[in-house]
Amino acid sequence: MKIDILSLFPDMFEGFIKTSIIKRAIASEVVDIKIHDFREFAQNKHLKVDDYPYGGGQGMVLMCQPLLDCLKSIVTPESLVVLMSPQGRTLNQSYSTELTKEKHLILICGHYEGFDERIRDYVDVELSIGDYVLTGGELASMVVTDSVVRLLDGAITEESHLDDSFSNGLLEYPQYTRPFEYDGNQVPDVLMSGHHENIRRWRLKQSLIKTLNKRPDLLEGRVWSDEELKIMQEIKEKD
Amino acid sequence: MKIDILSLFPDMFEGFIKTSIIKRAIASEVVDIKIHDFREFAQNKHLKVDDYPYGGGQGMVLMCQPLLDCLKSIVTPESLVVLMSPQGRTLNQSYSTELTKEKHLILICGHYEGFDERIRDYVDVELSIGDYVLTGGELASMVVTDSVVRLLDGAITEESHLDDSFSNGLLEYPQYTRPFEYDGNQVPDVLMSGHHENIRRWRLKQSLIKTLNKRPDLLEGRVWSDEELKIMQEIKEKD
Repeated sequence: MKIDILSLFPDMFEGFIKTSIIKRAIASEVVDIKIHDFREFAQNKHLKVDDYPYGGGQGMVLMCQPLLDCLKSIVTPESLVVLMSPQGRTLNQSYSTELTKEKHLILICGHYEGFDERIRDYVDVELSIGDYVLTGGELASMVVTDSVVRLLDGAITEESHLDDSFSNGLLEYPQYTRPFEYDGNQVPDVLMSGHHENIRRWRLKQSLIKTLNKRPDLLEGRVWSDEELKIMQEIKEKD
Repeated sequence: MKIDILSLFPDMFEGFIKTSIIKRAIASEVVDIKIHDFREFAQNKHLKVDDYPYGGGQGMVLMCQPLLDCLKSIVTPESLVVLMSPQGRTLNQSYSTELTKEKHLILICGHYEGFDERIRDYVDVELSIGDYVLTGGELASMVVTDSVVRLLDGAITEESHLDDSFSNGLLEYPQYTRPFEYDGNQVPDVLMSGHHENIRRWRLKQSLIKTLNKRPDLLEGRVWSDEELKIMQEIKEKD
């Protein structure tokens, strides 16, 4: 996969690209990520990229020309052009999975106030990462990149995904590692039993309890297995 | 405000802290941000911070000791200890605003698989930034930091917040800046009129139309003004 990110603050991406899974995914050619500073496309002598809003109002508005000239220099018929925007559809795990099928993602980051409405005409998808306001689209574009790249073949081992929160529609079960006792709290007996089937069932039950308590919305419309229904009955009887 | 971030990948924060509004907020002492590498607290000779999960399973689990020793070295009765976790409550703009009242935020970033369940006993809040899986809590902690710091007094000008998406419960109205015509598309006449009242009303109407089309969920439970009700009537009659 190829990911091009358009931003006025390319330095913000340095730590992100040089760390951990993203760094390895780039090194092993699972993904090719380039950051483009669209200020370089400004056609005025002060390299200005924003201007006052028509009709008045606070703040500045990103102009069409520098951003769209940069976009036009890299877009192809295979590109999916994504505008990071609080007005977009909200990213979730199933949409991240959908995005892994794309060959070329272009992520556009606005900054500060807003951008000229006409920029939207050149965009395939507007994407938000949540209902909060950020200084710019940079962190949002990194969140999208991280959530997509880790799902690409070869980025991390396949099995790791199977335990992900949300991957089976439930929150992850409690994990424990050494020491057996910390500050007086011990690891649950079942995990020390070596009885794989009991451990599997205990983990499923804990996942269901956690999801029920913390994120009951995730259970709406769930297609239940017989085992899950039985465990849910046990949980309700205990209450 | 003081923000301490606990992470195994302190380099990831470099670009974030040195750019734009966060950099200025630190320089003007609106916020003090420190990144702590809790690997430095590991008491084994290989500075190991994770171990295999009890009961088996893929991946590694963060151990209690290094992370909690690091936490105990900085926590005070005034601290709010936040664990970045996909199991947490989901960040939204009103919670970001609530967090601005805290004197000291401690944000804990996990990485890869998960962390020992007993770490949760030392945490006040578990916080997620959305329903997707990330490589670690680093980007999530930056998102929280960015959304909170920009709301602190002195970080950006007060008026800028008034136009924020979500700040009045609606998506932002369309913005335009020069040139008047781009690729054949012109700025709407009303914005060129100089008639402030017409511009204000047009913007409110466009905000309502955008929100209705893109994020109708934001309108649920809204306390409507008389003017908004009248405009909603106009929008419905036009359909």
